[in-house]
Amino acid sequence: MELKQIVLERYATKKFDGKTIEQKKVDELLDIIRLAPSSWNLQPWKIKIVTDSKLKEKLRAASWNQEQITTCSHLFIFCANKDIDAQITALKKLMLSTKVPEQTVKEYEDVVRGSFKNLSEEKKIAWAQRQVYIALENALLGAKASGFDSCPMEGFDAEAYAKILNLPENLVPTVVCPIGFAADKPKQKTRFAAKDVFF
Amino acid sequence: MELKQIVLERYATKKFDGKTIEQKKVDELLDIIRLAPSSWNLQPWKIKIVTDSKLKEKLRAASWNQEQITTCSHLFIFCANKDIDAQITALKKLMLSTKVPEQTVKEYEDVVRGSFKNLSEEKKIAWAQRQVYIALENALLGAKASGFDSCPMEGFDAEAYAKILNLPENLVPTVVCPIGFAADKPKQKTRFAAKDVFF
Repeated sequence: MELKQIVLERYATKKFDGKTIEQKKVDELLDIIRLAPSSWNLQPWKIKIVTDSKLKEKLRAASWNQEQITTCSHLFIFCANKDIDAQITALKKLMLSTKVPEQTVKEYEDVVRGSFKNLSEEKKIAWAQRQVYIALENALLGAKASGFDSCPMEGFDAEAYAKILNLPENLVPTVVCPIGFAADKPKQKTRFAAKDVFF
Repeated sequence: MELKQIVLERYATKKFDGKTIEQKKVDELLDIIRLAPSSWNLQPWKIKIVTDSKLKEKLRAASWNQEQITTCSHLFIFCANKDIDAQITALKKLMLSTKVPEQTVKEYEDVVRGSFKNLSEEKKIAWAQRQVYIALENALLGAKASGFDSCPMEGFDAEAYAKILNLPENLVPTVVCPIGFAADKPKQKTRFAAKDVFF
C-alpha cells in the first residue's frame, strides 16, 4: 500500500474484534517500530507488550475503562527511558560492536553527553517522550500497512501503569497503543486546511 | 514503495544537492504531514516553509552552521502551537463546518478544555511538542516515499529562529526538517536488537 493510502486509512480504532494477530505480522511491526529515527539515534524507548487478558483488565481499569485495552490483540505501552546516560553507554557499546571506529564513537559520546549535561530531569523526560512519538507513528502506520488497526491513547494513569507492570524506575509510560482488527468504522477525517497549517 | 522499505531507506541526510523539488511533489508531502494524527485531534502545530536562499543563510547561522540548511530544497520548521485554547476553538469551528452535531462538539469541547485546565504552560508546550514529532515522522517517511530525502534536526537555536522568522508568540520552533535530494550516502543503520527494545 502507498504511504498516502496508509495515512488516509489509519484511524483511532475504538473497538477491536478480539482476534489475535499472527506472530509473524507482529514481528514485522516490531521491526518498523525499532527502525524509527531518534535524536542522536539514542532510541530512548522501551515498549512493553501485553497480551494476557487478566493484565489487560487491570490496565483497562487504569485507562478510563476504555474497551480498546481489552478487545485488542496486543497492547503496546510505549515508555520513555529517562536514564539517558545508560542509553548513551548502551549505544556506544552497540556502535563499537558494529565496527564504528573507536575515535568516532569517543567524539560522538563526548558531544552527546555534553548536550544533556545541564538538562533537568524534567527536560530529559520531555526530550525522551518526544522521540517516543516518532516510534509511535511508525507503530500506527505499520499496523495499517500490515493489515490491522491501532489506537494511540494518552488517556491512562501512567503511575498506575508503572505499578501494575512493575516497571523499573527509569521507564516512564508515555503513550499506549493497542493493535488488532477493528470492530468499528472510521469516521470522516477532520483536518485543518493546508493554508492554516503551512505558512 | 512498501512502508518497511521506506523505513529502511530513510536516513538523516547531511548534504543535499541544491536542486528544487517540484511543487506537485511538495504538495503531496504536505498532505501526508497534514493528515498526521494527534491527541484530541488538536493538530497543535504550524509549519513554516523556507525556500529563500538569504533566509536559509541566516537560519544556518542559527543551526551550528550545518549545511543541510542551505543545500536543501525546502526547509520545514515544525512549530508547536502553545495556544491550546485557540486551537480548540478553531477545531470546534472546523467540526461544526463538517456537520458534526452541535451536541457532540459541545461535549468534546468540554472534555478537552477540562483536560488542559490545570496544566502549566510548560506542560502544555511539552504536550504540543510531542504531537509535533508525529507530524515530523510523516514528513520523514513521506519524503522518502515521494523520492527525496530529509534530515530531522534538533540542533538549532529556537529563540534565534523565532526572531529571524518573526514568529508569533504562540509558536515554539520545535524541530527542523530540510528536504531535498541527497548528495551524500546513508551509513549502516545502528539499532538496538528487538530483545533490548520490547519486553
